[in-house]
Amino acid sequence: MAPIRNARVLFNSHPEGYPVPGETTVYDATPTIDVDNVPLNGGFLVKTLVVSVDPYFRGRMRKPDPKSYAAYAAGFALGEPLYGYGIAKVLRSETPDVEVGKYIYGPNIMHQEYTVYPGLGTTLRLIEKHPDLPWTAYVGAAGMPGKTAWFAWQEFSDAKAGQIAFVTTGAGPVGSMVIQLAKAAGMKVIASAGSEEKVQFMKSIGVDVPFNYKTTDTREVLAKEGPIDIFWDNVGGEILDAALEFSAVYGRFILCGSIAGYNQPHVPIKNTPLIAVRSLHLHGILVFRLEHKYDKAFYATIPEKLASGEIKYSEEVVRGLEGVGDLILRVQKGENKAKAVVVVADE
Amino acid sequence: MAPIRNARVLFNSHPEGYPVPGETTVYDATPTIDVDNVPLNGGFLVKTLVVSVDPYFRGRMRKPDPKSYAAYAAGFALGEPLYGYGIAKVLRSETPDVEVGKYIYGPNIMHQEYTVYPGLGTTLRLIEKHPDLPWTAYVGAAGMPGKTAWFAWQEFSDAKAGQIAFVTTGAGPVGSMVIQLAKAAGMKVIASAGSEEKVQFMKSIGVDVPFNYKTTDTREVLAKEGPIDIFWDNVGGEILDAALEFSAVYGRFILCGSIAGYNQPHVPIKNTPLIAVRSLHLHGILVFRLEHKYDKAFYATIPEKLASGEIKYSEEVVRGLEGVGDLILRVQKGENKAKAVVVVADE
Repeated sequence: MAPIRNARVLFNSHPEGYPVPGETTVYDATPTIDVDNVPLNGGFLVKTLVVSVDPYFRGRMRKPDPKSYAAYAAGFALGEPLYGYGIAKVLRSETPDVEVGKYIYGPNIMHQEYTVYPGLGTTLRLIEKHPDLPWTAYVGAAGMPGKTAWFAWQEFSDAKAGQIAFVTTGAGPVGSMVIQLAKAAGMKVIASAGSEEKVQFMKSIGVDVPFNYKTTDTREVLAKEGPIDIFWDNVGGEILDAALEFSAVYGRFILCGSIAGYNQPHVPIKNTPLIAVRSLHLHGILVFRLEHKYDKAFYATIPEKLASGEIKYSEEVVRGLEGVGDLILRVQKGENKAKAVVVVADE
Repeated sequence: MAPIRNARVLFNSHPEGYPVPGETTVYDATPTIDVDNVPLNGGFLVKTLVVSVDPYFRGRMRKPDPKSYAAYAAGFALGEPLYGYGIAKVLRSETPDVEVGKYIYGPNIMHQEYTVYPGLGTTLRLIEKHPDLPWTAYVGAAGMPGKTAWFAWQEFSDAKAGQIAFVTTGAGPVGSMVIQLAKAAGMKVIASAGSEEKVQFMKSIGVDVPFNYKTTDTREVLAKEGPIDIFWDNVGGEILDAALEFSAVYGRFILCGSIAGYNQPHVPIKNTPLIAVRSLHLHGILVFRLEHKYDKAFYATIPEKLASGEIKYSEEVVRGLEGVGDLILRVQKGENKAKAVVVVADE
C-alpha cells in the first residue's frame, strides 16, 4: 500500500496564559507513513483510535524550570507531538506479547494517527473492551479520570454515611465519579460546576445540593449546607480557601487538581491555620502513584457498573485530531460540557 | 487560719495585635480565700504549683465569632482568670477519688493561687511525679507540648531512616521533642529558631542543620539541604510556603501551629497546588484529639527518658503569677529562651 497521511498535533510554543489553538499547538497533516513497510525494529505499530484531552495538559506546557523540585512528568517537547491517555489498535508487531488486533492504553499515546512503539515499556498496557462500552469511555470514567476518583476515594475518603461531601467540577469525569461514590456511601453531596447544563447533569446523578459557582456564592452555599467532612478539589484557589473555612473537624481534603491557577496566577490561600485547629487531613493525589494498589480491582468492577448504568458518565466527543487544539482551550476554560475525548479513527 | 491572698491573672481585654501586659491581662492580688473553710460542695480545693504559658493562648484571646466554625476550645472570658495546663496539689477534698496530698494536671488549671473544682470532670486527671523530674517538666516535655510532639509523630510521621525532616521552633518544647524523635528514627534534621542561643541548643540535641531564620534565608537552606520528607510546623505563613516549595514527593506535613499569624494577618500560601503534584499529606493536629490513643504509652515511656537524660529538654522558669502577662507576650514574640513555665508556689 502506498504511504498514507499520518497527521499529528505538534506542541509549538509555551503559552503565557490560556493555550492558543494554532499557536500553542499546531495540527500538521503533512507527514505520511507506509503502514505495511515502516520498520518496527522489534516494536509494534498502532493506529490511534481515541485520545483524551485533560486539564493536566496545561502543566505539561510549562517551560522547564531546573530550580523546581516539581514531580511532574516531563513537559511536552517543542516541535514534537502531544501525548496523553488514549487507546490504539495494534496493526503490526514484532513484540511477542503485543499481538496484532489487540488494543493498548496508557499515558503516552501520541496525538498522531499511526505510531511505532519499541515496546509496552512501563506505562502502556493491553486492554480489553466491555462489549457495551465505547472505547471513549476507557479514557474517561473507565480510564484515568475514573481511576483517579476511585483510587483516591478508596485510599483517603474514610467516607461515613450521613456526612457531607463537597465536590468541585462535579460534571467532569473525576467529579461525577466522586459524586456517585459519595452517594453510594450514604453521604449528602454538595457539588459545583460552571453552567446550568452541568448543574442539571449533577442533579441527574444524585447531587443533593448542585450549584453554578459562577452565579451562586460558594461561601453562602457552604455556610448553609456545610460543614464539609470530605472535600474533593479539582479547582484550588478561592474554592479551596472557602472549603477550609467551612470544613468540619477531622475533615478529609482530597486535592486532585487546581485548574483555577493553571492559566493565571494562583490565588493564595489564607485559611491554612484551620488545618491544625480542626485536625484536617489534606491528601494530594496523582493517579499513577496509586495504580499498583487499585488498578486490578478497578477494571474488575467499574466497567461493568458503567455498562449497566449503575454508574453514570457523560462525554463530549470531537472527531479528528484537527479539533485537539480547540478542545484543549475549552477544557482549560471549563467550556467543555463533559469529559473531552477525541475520536481519531474508527476501527 | 485567717483568709489569705488568692492572687490571680484576669483576662481584661481582647488584644488587637500582640497582647499587652497590664491591659490584655491584669494581675490581681486583692482576693482572699479561707482555705480551711471555703465550702467545697462535694468538690476539692487545690493549691496551684505550676502553670504553663503556651503559644495557643493567643487563640483563646480572640473575640468570639459566631460565623466561624472554628473548633477552638472556648476563649478566655473577660473579667475571669486565665487558665491553661498546670499542676496543682490537693489541699482538701470531698471527692472520694481525689485524695488530699495528690496532684492534678489538666488544661483548665486556673491562673490563681487556690481553686475549688467541683470534680475532675473530663479534662483533669491525677498525676504522679518521677522522682528525678521537677513538676515544671509536666507542663513541658512531660506534658502537653511533649505529648503533642510524641502523639503526632507516632500517628503521622511515617519516619524512615535517611529521610529529611525540617522542624520549626526547634528550641521550643514541641520542636525539640520532634527533633529528638526524628534523630532517633535515623533522619537528617534541619531545624529553625530565632536566636543564636536557640541555634546552639538545637545543635546540642543533635540537629544536623540548625539555623536562625532571622539571619539566614529559609529557602536557601531548604534548596541546599532538602527536599523535605517530613515538615513539622509551628509557624505557618512564609515558612509553610517555603516548605511546600522544597517538599519531597510523598512528604508528610504535620501542622501543629501557625504563630506567624497569631498576632498579625496570616501570610497567604501560594504553593498549595504542589500538594497534589507531589502527593503530599498534610495533617493538622491538636493534642487532645490524640490523647485517648497514646496517653498511657507516653507516661510509661517519656518521663523516664527525660529523667535519665536520654531525651533532653529545657525550660525558662518564671516565679509568681505577676509574671504571666509579660511571659505571654514574650512567648508570642518568640523572646522566651525555652519552654515558658510559671512556678506559682512551692509545695
